[in-house]
Amino acid sequence: MTTAITWIGYTAGALTTIAFLPQVLHVWKRKSADDLHMGTLISFTVGVTLWLVYGIFSRQKPVVVANAVTLALQCTILYLKVRYSRAGK
Amino acid sequence: MTTAITWIGYTAGALTTIAFLPQVLHVWKRKSADDLHMGTLISFTVGVTLWLVYGIFSRQKPVVVANAVTLALQCTILYLKVRYSRAGK
Repeated sequence: MTTAITWIGYTAGALTTIAFLPQVLHVWKRKSADDLHMGTLISFTVGVTLWLVYGIFSRQKPVVVANAVTLALQCTILYLKVRYSRAGK
Repeated sequence: MTTAITWIGYTAGALTTIAFLPQVLHVWKRKSADDLHMGTLISFTVGVTLWLVYGIFSRQKPVVVANAVTLALQCTILYLKVRYSRAGK
């Protein structure tokens, strides 16, 4: 049973992490991120950074790996949003 | 030190959960979610559902609460996206 729960956790982590890869490509292809709320992106990015800090200090490798990947993807989305907003898109 | 780590975890959870509330309002006001990738929304929603299951079976109340709120907000975004896509927006 414990093994099943652990695997549910790994699957959950994989899905909520990799989910943002198509979002990065979607924004990059459309050259638009107007429908994405800036406050949401900032709040989520700061939150993920804190999860990363939490994972490092509590020595939970899966938490560190998942949040490091998510942070990289969120920073990319945030950068693209600022870039396309400035371009007047 | 342990208390500080715990509080970092709570703050992280609060930020990554509440982040999606302005996104719901943003999509609702704009009547558009074209920049949000459907695959991202589905993958993230399924992942959050599994985190909820994980939290229930491993009896971690903060995990249950955070993911229940996130799930409700994600389902709302997903519903609005489908609704506005069908409306030809």
